[in-house]
Amino acid sequence: MSALAFDIHGRDGEARTGALTTPRGTIRTPAFMPVGTAASVKAMFPDTVRETGADIILGNTYHLMLRPGAERIARLGGLHDFMNWPGPILTDSGGFQVMSLSKLRKLSEDGVTFQSHIDGSTHLLTPERAVEIQCLLGSDIQMQLDECPPYPCTREEAASAVELSLRWAERSQDAFAKRAAAGHALFGIVQGSIHPDLRERSARALMEMDFPGYAIGGLAVGEGPDLMLETLAQTTPHLPADKPRYLMGVGTPLDIVEAVARGVDMFDCVMPTRSGRHGQAFTWAGKVNLRNAAHADDPGPLDPESPCPAARDYSRAYLHHLVKAGEYLAPMLLTWANVAFYQDLMRAVRAAIQEGRLDELRTRIRVAYG
Amino acid sequence: MSALAFDIHGRDGEARTGALTTPRGTIRTPAFMPVGTAASVKAMFPDTVRETGADIILGNTYHLMLRPGAERIARLGGLHDFMNWPGPILTDSGGFQVMSLSKLRKLSEDGVTFQSHIDGSTHLLTPERAVEIQCLLGSDIQMQLDECPPYPCTREEAASAVELSLRWAERSQDAFAKRAAAGHALFGIVQGSIHPDLRERSARALMEMDFPGYAIGGLAVGEGPDLMLETLAQTTPHLPADKPRYLMGVGTPLDIVEAVARGVDMFDCVMPTRSGRHGQAFTWAGKVNLRNAAHADDPGPLDPESPCPAARDYSRAYLHHLVKAGEYLAPMLLTWANVAFYQDLMRAVRAAIQEGRLDELRTRIRVAYG
Ligand SMILES: [Zn+2]
Ligand SMILES: [Zn+2]
Repeated sequence: MSALAFDIHGRDGEARTGALTTPRGTIRTPAFMPVGTAASVKAMFPDTVRETGADIILGNTYHLMLRPGAERIARLGGLHDFMNWPGPILTDSGGFQVMSLSKLRKLSEDGVTFQSHIDGSTHLLTPERAVEIQCLLGSDIQMQLDECPPYPCTREEAASAVELSLRWAERSQDAFAKRAAAGHALFGIVQGSIHPDLRERSARALMEMDFPGYAIGGLAVGEGPDLMLETLAQTTPHLPADKPRYLMGVGTPLDIVEAVARGVDMFDCVMPTRSGRHGQAFTWAGKVNLRNAAHADDPGPLDPESPCPAARDYSRAYLHHLVKAGEYLAPMLLTWANVAFYQDLMRAVRAAIQEGRLDELRTRIRVAYG
Repeated sequence: MSALAFDIHGRDGEARTGALTTPRGTIRTPAFMPVGTAASVKAMFPDTVRETGADIILGNTYHLMLRPGAERIARLGGLHDFMNWPGPILTDSGGFQVMSLSKLRKLSEDGVTFQSHIDGSTHLLTPERAVEIQCLLGSDIQMQLDECPPYPCTREEAASAVELSLRWAERSQDAFAKRAAAGHALFGIVQGSIHPDLRERSARALMEMDFPGYAIGGLAVGEGPDLMLETLAQTTPHLPADKPRYLMGVGTPLDIVEAVARGVDMFDCVMPTRSGRHGQAFTWAGKVNLRNAAHADDPGPLDPESPCPAARDYSRAYLHHLVKAGEYLAPMLLTWANVAFYQDLMRAVRAAIQEGRLDELRTRIRVAYG
């Protein structure tokens, strides 16, 4: 069953703006997905996330399978009901976090065996189990299990990860065909590290398999923004023009507008939420560190023109005080302001593409964040 | 300038219900004041605190004088603007927390010298400085500096604390008369530990000074609920019938209804907020510990009939998960639910007094919380 309708409404160079339609709602693209790791966008109420303009959030298979468990979430009606988020949810496959968070992980053709970082219990994640878990969660957009090699890695390692990920892509697709609910979709993931030919091989092979969307993995893992954007520019041309492209785990406001200019439609990153918990705010004038004593007597808000109450209705002096005093309200307000800024940025990106002035916005963001 | 109008609209035995009117708004009594220690009701947005039905919140002079500093808050427009709470604010004098939180404290006739628990700096808090700080904060209802002896203490210590507190009451009143803004009020504080004659001496002497309201201090400090209520019943008859009575730092739902039955009009306690941060919820059916594994698969909400979204729209299974996972959303939802429950309780208390059925409510609360 065909899952997603992707309509492109406007273009500016390689950049596209449009809408990705799912049974749970429409996702305006380019889209930024706030990260709801353990069934919560940290320090935010789900209603507030929605009110910032987020059409879709991301959930982490690795975290959810370990706690509270995918079968439990399924018994409780699925992830949407569980966390009170009625809109679309994209889940990763768990593979990336197995490699970064778990202990004693062992990769084989079958999948990856690992020990939980929470209780040390042993788990096997296969392409089939990753699909099963995401089906149990009720994810609207699933990701295939892939192998994401570290950076730097040898060309051989990168090539081997491409081939294993492609074999896993087929197994994921088979598993998905057997059990996914109507209206749900599975994306393939392009690997290939920083090697243009490997990226092309990966993209073309996945395209042959005809996925409803394509993720670009293995970037923003330490290669730096220049190499990331160069690799991206060598990858997107090999992906179908009429399918959504999702750059995983990216990024700063500058990363995002530059990736959009290279044809990316979807993003996720912990940056706005994590920074909010560390006293840092994103604004149109750049990043603001509220821990800084310079704000102690500043009666001005984070951004007087922001429609977000967190950025508009509280002084920097108050935010500084909350951060210094370790008050819960500091992450609550700063995360809210940051998620709202990222959605505001995506609104501006979509409008700029529609009106053919993305370069102007790129310049503005480069001035503030470059 | 006369500060507060206190109108009693209904009585049931010793209990009264009415309204305390300040220039910043009307406080329906009996009232529960959520505690906003360091210029924030922990883990809540000020709008949400208001929406639960709270007419007034409490701020802590000790915390605010040390961080961010009373003079700074005054420069920034006062505590109401600083924390975005336009309604009435009651502040304590700082004395209680100097004795419980600070280091190297030394009490003299003049006041109390202490070292900050934050940075070790030395401060002197006198009756005059306590009034000055509360004026700088812009507090609507101030408390005199008093000496609150520990429990147990000797009768001599209790008597000495009564007399010192009375002398400080006079100095506070003089300082307040000189500098307080129109519409603000200063309450005297009754001490006397568990000795009825000392309580009577304290209450009568304060009444002679004609305060617009009377706080009852030195209770809920370890004497237990029976002795607290007995002392309370021996104290309130010696206070003017037409002035509000505030029982400081109390308490559980049962403490509150029982104190209301003994003529108390105002309460504050960290219990709903602190419990919310520790995974505990207050409901009409009693206290619920969300940490308990029994909730792991419970699809039911905390309280399906609650008007509070936090108590109504999330399953106990989800709340359990959030608590276990250490998610910020756990304190956010549970504090909200608890503050909403306390306000719901006070609404029920006011209605019960008005309708002459407080005993019925006392029985209900005793069943759930006794
Ligand atoms: Zn990221
Ligand atoms: Zn208390």
